[in-house]
Amino acid sequence: MEIFEAIRGRRSIRKFEDKDIPMQDLKKILEAGVWAPSGSNIQPWEFILVKNKGTIEKIKLISPGLFGNPSALIILCINHERAKRGGKLGVKTALMDISMAAQNMMLTAYALGIGSCPVVSFNKLALKELLDVPDHVEPVLIISVGYPKFMPKPPKRRPLKEVVHIEKFGEHFNR
Amino acid sequence: MEIFEAIRGRRSIRKFEDKDIPMQDLKKILEAGVWAPSGSNIQPWEFILVKNKGTIEKIKLISPGLFGNPSALIILCINHERAKRGGKLGVKTALMDISMAAQNMMLTAYALGIGSCPVVSFNKLALKELLDVPDHVEPVLIISVGYPKFMPKPPKRRPLKEVVHIEKFGEHFNR
Repeated sequence: MEIFEAIRGRRSIRKFEDKDIPMQDLKKILEAGVWAPSGSNIQPWEFILVKNKGTIEKIKLISPGLFGNPSALIILCINHERAKRGGKLGVKTALMDISMAAQNMMLTAYALGIGSCPVVSFNKLALKELLDVPDHVEPVLIISVGYPKFMPKPPKRRPLKEVVHIEKFGEHFNR
Repeated sequence: MEIFEAIRGRRSIRKFEDKDIPMQDLKKILEAGVWAPSGSNIQPWEFILVKNKGTIEKIKLISPGLFGNPSALIILCINHERAKRGGKLGVKTALMDISMAAQNMMLTAYALGIGSCPVVSFNKLALKELLDVPDHVEPVLIISVGYPKFMPKPPKRRPLKEVVHIEKFGEHFNR
């Protein structure tokens, strides 16, 4: 799939078909994450793939932002031992690096016909305990994935001439 | 360009040709940002496009992380008045939303033959003053863009079987 088509076409999907995703496609999605840029190439990320239905149900109980019946979850975590090599800016940069990895994953999923949704509302401590996550690793984002029941309409975007400022803040495109 | 090719092929570029980027291509890059997902569709971003050579030079003086002679800069900012609609998680989510927008922009640039580099090391207050950025808007990331002098080799990635944990932290793919 062409890149701009993927960027424009991707939607956040919250209703999924009851159908497994082949491991080969999950690996492609995970690998797309690894190719994100990271500050000083620190790659401060750890990705936990959860396919077990029972575990997904338990995670839903502690994640108010997680809807539907995803076929799998990818939990993106900051490895703080790696992030701190980035000095003062390390943790903030790590959060940005991981978000870029997440976007790579969601675009790749879309190109494979797989829907996804980024979720930030979950109980971090409970999730860590459930998945044996050590102290120096912090889950920051869950991406739910599955085959979409339907494609929602794109939510309205702020127009470019409002969002983009030219040379100085407050100066906009004429059209 | 095919999506996975863009994700794998994109490099951070720090040496640029002395050549302008057509405004039409800059608009495509900026528009890719607008299509990122955002928490509750808040779209907490403002993008400042700087093409003026004098302004770019001034920004370089206050940005230790900004190298080479980019043709343009895109400064990605959190609009805190928008972000706070997202409640307690708003600012953290805004940073993630903006990073996803940044990745969309860098992938689109690459597909257009344009190099880019994300920069987090700059003097925020000086940048705000220089570009008339109001109090409620915070620059968090600069993306420098320009035609690459050359394509660097990909920095080494941590292997998937190290980064990915299966069902629980510490359980890895066998191969």
